[in-house]
Amino acid sequence: MRLHTPANPGVIGAVATAIGQAGGIVTAIDVTESTHEKLTVDVTCSAGDAEHAASLPGVAETVEGVEVYRVSDRTFLLHIGGKIEVSSKVPLRNRDDLSMAYTPGVGRVSRALAEKPEDIPRLTIKGNSVAVVTDGSAVLGLGNIGPGAALPVMEGKAALFKRFANIDAWPICLDTQDTDEIVRAVEMIAPGFGGINLEDIAAPRCFEIEARLRESLDIPVFHDDQHGTAIVVLAALTNALRVVGKEIGEVRIALNGAGAAGTAICNLLLAAGVPDIVMVDKVGCLSSDDDTLTGSHAELAIRTNPRKVRGTLEDALKGADVFIGVSAPNILKEEWIPTMADDAVVFALANPDPEIDPAVAGRHAAVVASGRSDYPNQINNVLAFPGVFRGLLDARASDVTTEMLLKAAEAIALTVGDHELNASFIIPSVFNTEVTEAVADAISGRERD
Amino acid sequence: MRLHTPANPGVIGAVATAIGQAGGIVTAIDVTESTHEKLTVDVTCSAGDAEHAASLPGVAETVEGVEVYRVSDRTFLLHIGGKIEVSSKVPLRNRDDLSMAYTPGVGRVSRALAEKPEDIPRLTIKGNSVAVVTDGSAVLGLGNIGPGAALPVMEGKAALFKRFANIDAWPICLDTQDTDEIVRAVEMIAPGFGGINLEDIAAPRCFEIEARLRESLDIPVFHDDQHGTAIVVLAALTNALRVVGKEIGEVRIALNGAGAAGTAICNLLLAAGVPDIVMVDKVGCLSSDDDTLTGSHAELAIRTNPRKVRGTLEDALKGADVFIGVSAPNILKEEWIPTMADDAVVFALANPDPEIDPAVAGRHAAVVASGRSDYPNQINNVLAFPGVFRGLLDARASDVTTEMLLKAAEAIALTVGDHELNASFIIPSVFNTEVTEAVADAISGRERD
Repeated sequence: MRLHTPANPGVIGAVATAIGQAGGIVTAIDVTESTHEKLTVDVTCSAGDAEHAASLPGVAETVEGVEVYRVSDRTFLLHIGGKIEVSSKVPLRNRDDLSMAYTPGVGRVSRALAEKPEDIPRLTIKGNSVAVVTDGSAVLGLGNIGPGAALPVMEGKAALFKRFANIDAWPICLDTQDTDEIVRAVEMIAPGFGGINLEDIAAPRCFEIEARLRESLDIPVFHDDQHGTAIVVLAALTNALRVVGKEIGEVRIALNGAGAAGTAICNLLLAAGVPDIVMVDKVGCLSSDDDTLTGSHAELAIRTNPRKVRGTLEDALKGADVFIGVSAPNILKEEWIPTMADDAVVFALANPDPEIDPAVAGRHAAVVASGRSDYPNQINNVLAFPGVFRGLLDARASDVTTEMLLKAAEAIALTVGDHELNASFIIPSVFNTEVTEAVADAISGRERD
Repeated sequence: MRLHTPANPGVIGAVATAIGQAGGIVTAIDVTESTHEKLTVDVTCSAGDAEHAASLPGVAETVEGVEVYRVSDRTFLLHIGGKIEVSSKVPLRNRDDLSMAYTPGVGRVSRALAEKPEDIPRLTIKGNSVAVVTDGSAVLGLGNIGPGAALPVMEGKAALFKRFANIDAWPICLDTQDTDEIVRAVEMIAPGFGGINLEDIAAPRCFEIEARLRESLDIPVFHDDQHGTAIVVLAALTNALRVVGKEIGEVRIALNGAGAAGTAICNLLLAAGVPDIVMVDKVGCLSSDDDTLTGSHAELAIRTNPRKVRGTLEDALKGADVFIGVSAPNILKEEWIPTMADDAVVFALANPDPEIDPAVAGRHAAVVASGRSDYPNQINNVLAFPGVFRGLLDARASDVTTEMLLKAAEAIALTVGDHELNASFIIPSVFNTEVTEAVADAISGRERD
């Protein structure tokens, strides 16, 4: 925040003290203008959350003579002008450069590609580019905020693609929420991209969109909210079971939330050999003997719940080895965890607020994971999608298979060595550079060194 | 080219001599591998054209013992992997960075934008990004080569946007050539971009696509093949008339080619006050008393040709002050130029081969321009489109007006001072940094320093 203060050295100290007493952390104080009467001072400080941050200017103004001129938010400042840019990889210094990169030289390249389209990925950006496509209908925990407001998220995703896998991703925010139109839009823009990352598209339309695009396009289509999450959950579960000494082919899982992520997690766990999954949604446990179920609920019920458990989440949890939640905040009650099997595993993944406070869950469960970065075992898609697309692009793959997803999960799990593995460290850090490489190799089928 | 030669120093010299005698220019010789018996040598050389280049490996092999192992083309090498990339503008070093650029921090920015959409251009890439959209139907002089083969051209354009105007442009190559579908595709991707540059879309569909998008979108839409060309032609014509001492409000112009570029040039010249334009297409002079004309031909005829000239290009040229060709190679006969008015101006802009050899035209005309970089007065869109979009984005303009195009042309013309102006220098160099700025200021209405 920028303050106007009297030209009195004691005042700045008083401001810093007041902010500190109110729980703010002052990281910098810069005097940007000084006259005999008045100072202009920029105070940089960290707050606990948005509400706390909003209170700090008032705290500064409690110091006599201090006037808050403007408050800026570090996060908003970071986003000004957007977070990504396009750079030229070729020099454009003189005529000669121009005539190779653009006309007339580029004409020879285009003519060659018209005759031999299989060279397009090698001689253009297509070989390394991914479209991050959204309709803005299910953005983070914010819901249907539309394509324009979703753009900062898609830019962030593109920045992560570059940072973690050197992939050139560009946001495509679609001004439609009609399934047919989204499918057609992606089909039409596909020639310029080597892969399609669907992002933050609401269920159930995301299932149909992905299925139809996989059918019609010759480049891989991957809905990160589904499969990225499923890969990381399976990786984390694999290691959690290593910690508690159970086999994936023998566990019972209660999976709460049958949206995009929950459905994909369920599918991947079934493919990994989990014999007993009870899916729970707002209607309760999904069971094939419940003839009130329709659509995707009925379809899921057929493939899961062999014991035909009925009732609520509380019923599904009895005797379960694992709870996985991709649902809503605070819906898992502490007293239900002791009813689970011994050495229970709890993954409370709702964002930003989990199904149960991880610290509370930890009183009863042997292993706890969440989506939060301020607890151990953060389930973060950044562990999966960069490597997945790196592998797909490197292999010039046209499809994403379940086999690939299983191998990617295994690769992530294996980056945690036996000597590192414990209940607080079941998944690697997102900054572990080995992870992207391991996932890429698993996806592309490349032998590792 | 990479050669295998005997390990004999004289051989390399002999290769260089042979290539030089065949008209090639050797710019580098690198020995990349050497054994007692054999050398591997990379020879870099320039050739006059593609055919000449293809002959040089054979020339190298006339030297005894020399074997050509592989021939690479400098232009193709430049395009490997594509010519543009996406970079992150924000640091992503640690958790704290991630939490501001991506979740959870980005959520606050997205929520703010959902509430206040007018901030989207300021807090996202939208404020500086342009989609370079093509359907691949009229790419350079190559015709309908499709969206994939058009990608190198669109990437080159994006690289030029960055180089000349610091704009982040991304290629969108559409897998459709249906007018309705192209319009809808651009409407759907529009939320993520601050402007739309239509490129290499065939006439007449380009006219309808542009008109409909200008109607439906709140960001500017600019078909560069039309208006970029028209701006630079008007700028060049303005200065050519300064050289020959004629007024634009008094000249007669024969304009050959009624496609996208020709129609746009015609419209802008009319707006600039040219009183007498005779449009000539494959059907001959367009005249409103010719009732065999239909569609765009009939429409153009109504607005041009006040003297109702009939016949061929030869007839249109009689007494004309200016010839402008955006048509086909070698269709302007040398002997027709002396039938034009005194101090004739000839713009032979067909690419890559002009309507008449500029050197031949120069025997009779006072000022000659072409699209070729190896003659004076190259009419090059790079003079216009970067500055046009810089100005549009800076002004957050929602529309492109004819007034803007006229001002942009004037700005380009004025960058050539009276002391510089002559028959061989009617337009500035593309590397004159003043041009983009001058055009941007003209478009945005900003006062110049």
